[in-house]
Amino acid sequence: MHQPGTLVVGQSGGPTAVINQTLIGVVQAALARRDQFPKVLGAIHGIQGIIDGKFCDFSKESPETLELVANTPSAALKSVRRKASAEDGEKIFARFKELGVTAFFYIGGNDTAETTHIVHEMAVKAGYPLTCFHCPKTIDNDLRVTDHCPGYGSAAKFVAQAFMGDNLDNRSLAGIKVNIVMGRNAGWLTAASALARVFPNDGPHLIYCPETDFSLETFCADVEAVYRRIGRCIIAVSEGIHGPGGKGIVTSGEVDSHGNAQLSGSGALGDFLAETLKTHLAKSWPEKKHRVRADTFGYLQRCFPGVVSTIDAVEARRAGSAAVAAALAGNASGSIAFRRIGDGAQYSIETFVTPLHTVAKETKSMPREFLNAAGNDVVTERLLPYLKPLVGELPRVGQLAGVG
Amino acid sequence: MHQPGTLVVGQSGGPTAVINQTLIGVVQAALARRDQFPKVLGAIHGIQGIIDGKFCDFSKESPETLELVANTPSAALKSVRRKASAEDGEKIFARFKELGVTAFFYIGGNDTAETTHIVHEMAVKAGYPLTCFHCPKTIDNDLRVTDHCPGYGSAAKFVAQAFMGDNLDNRSLAGIKVNIVMGRNAGWLTAASALARVFPNDGPHLIYCPETDFSLETFCADVEAVYRRIGRCIIAVSEGIHGPGGKGIVTSGEVDSHGNAQLSGSGALGDFLAETLKTHLAKSWPEKKHRVRADTFGYLQRCFPGVVSTIDAVEARRAGSAAVAAALAGNASGSIAFRRIGDGAQYSIETFVTPLHTVAKETKSMPREFLNAAGNDVVTERLLPYLKPLVGELPRVGQLAGVG
Repeated sequence: MHQPGTLVVGQSGGPTAVINQTLIGVVQAALARRDQFPKVLGAIHGIQGIIDGKFCDFSKESPETLELVANTPSAALKSVRRKASAEDGEKIFARFKELGVTAFFYIGGNDTAETTHIVHEMAVKAGYPLTCFHCPKTIDNDLRVTDHCPGYGSAAKFVAQAFMGDNLDNRSLAGIKVNIVMGRNAGWLTAASALARVFPNDGPHLIYCPETDFSLETFCADVEAVYRRIGRCIIAVSEGIHGPGGKGIVTSGEVDSHGNAQLSGSGALGDFLAETLKTHLAKSWPEKKHRVRADTFGYLQRCFPGVVSTIDAVEARRAGSAAVAAALAGNASGSIAFRRIGDGAQYSIETFVTPLHTVAKETKSMPREFLNAAGNDVVTERLLPYLKPLVGELPRVGQLAGVG
Repeated sequence: MHQPGTLVVGQSGGPTAVINQTLIGVVQAALARRDQFPKVLGAIHGIQGIIDGKFCDFSKESPETLELVANTPSAALKSVRRKASAEDGEKIFARFKELGVTAFFYIGGNDTAETTHIVHEMAVKAGYPLTCFHCPKTIDNDLRVTDHCPGYGSAAKFVAQAFMGDNLDNRSLAGIKVNIVMGRNAGWLTAASALARVFPNDGPHLIYCPETDFSLETFCADVEAVYRRIGRCIIAVSEGIHGPGGKGIVTSGEVDSHGNAQLSGSGALGDFLAETLKTHLAKSWPEKKHRVRADTFGYLQRCFPGVVSTIDAVEARRAGSAAVAAALAGNASGSIAFRRIGDGAQYSIETFVTPLHTVAKETKSMPREFLNAAGNDVVTERLLPYLKPLVGELPRVGQLAGVG
């Protein structure tokens, strides 16, 4: 049973376009139950703010600000990449006791779920009455248990629109174009590029995800085949592609505090693949001048204002309110997850609570059957029924019949 | 006086989000005057299509398709980067005679204006009755004479929203972030990043344009000063920055058929600046671990579906219809330009015709007074009154009062 007291909510890890929807979902649900949550505090920079004693008091924010913040990308409470050590745990409990905290809500990905889990385990061990909830967010869509993650739909929409534009660009000035998409361990976001295909021969023409091993030779042959057939080629490549045994294609050597290799924020992989293709084509097709370019979508894809999936925003808000509801219903801990309901004809979801350990630490890849046997494209009829409802409407584009 | 006959319209150079608005502006105005233009043809891949005899017939396209195409980014007729040689000119005239062409409309930037000018001069010399109009488009906003160019407002909107998102991202996870923006010779698009500033201390904190000389030492000192003051720094850098005398910072060595250096499509400049900053800070501030990243916006910024300035779309359509109207009014040649009218309290423009040679070849930089004396920022009160009406509404973002 939930014990009335101060509620602390925080945000952690990389931002998304809708992470504040979840924050405001928690906050509005909590502010509506002052009997249970006499104080609702936001930890600034996640557990770092708890340790340092830096909070904002949500009772002092206007309802208009809360709505505007909900519709603002990136973590309004500011974020942190920090795993709770045993020492951190001590500090967190000291602070929670000081402030009479009985509920902790932490919004983030698998690393955040792990920290929530650690904090909860410590509380149980210490006999401290603390309700601990993790609310999912990640553009990578790689959390276990849940059907999908808040944040993914909006990032997927950005990637889809980016490829729609790039396909039109490449159609007008033909060449080879490599686009590097975020997603270290899972190809979900890269696969979303398939949504850009509207007309026959629209790109992306090839899609490479980290769920299969990547070979530079096969890549060059794949690209050349498309390029010889239709005179151009757009390729979606996950930043997480790797050779057999997980060996990297290009690594910058940097590792974050959770042990993740840093590939974003550098154009190295894209430039390397473009150079490799140029060198290959100079040998295999020397008669022609080849135009090969690469773009790395980088941080733009994770919180671009104005490119937000409506359903993603609605569901992200719901993930927050569902966590508060689950706490009030007596759940001591857990993570909010989604599952699809109904006959599948119309998209509909329900939320449920899954134990923290089921989403902490490990991530989930895209099912191998969403990718073709060659590992160079998605299987459209499997991926799109899953993906389309999460992204919603895309801009309509047209083509002149007489141009083709 | 315009001589009734076939009209040929084409698109040339890099695409924009609204270049098809101009195309459809020409086409709809021409289709409405079948007495003057019994046939309205689109040259596929610009003058290449004229040379090769590849056209589409607009009378065969449905009105719905034309409207949808108008709202689709990038060149629906496909584009080309080709300057008309004397030999090309011969072929173009042979084709025009064959098809009874008496009007040629070419949509593009300064290189396209030059080709239109060359074609018109040849026609005059040959005594061939040919009306020749150039319709402006460029995301770079670097055409002479006109107040601004169709395509710029939408690209500026993309850049502004990208920086808004990146500022929120960087605010939540602090560090140094370099973003490379398109614009070889003019800083207009890079300067548009200033629109992203909403709250105090919002980025971009530094803006570097090609209108001033760039020094790596000053750059490092500028960034460190901001970073020490507020703990983070977002920097907008034009791909066209250069040292004294126009010497490049990084050049890839590639040059297009108009002699322009190819900087887009490579992450090299951004990665180089990020590495330079890391090396600098490792020496000047060794006690702290520094997070430095770079993104290169690349092709995304020039035709992203769904991120379009409404006024830009309207004006781009108008540039096309104005060209047809000018031809019907008896102008033998020219380029359509915009000028602001009224007292400046409310934004309003009118179109006028400027001679082809006044916009051909040479480009226009941003006025030096739009940049501060140090050359590391815009002068907001000069730039924004010019820029804001072209971009229109941006997404609203909020901030929690208690976070700061």
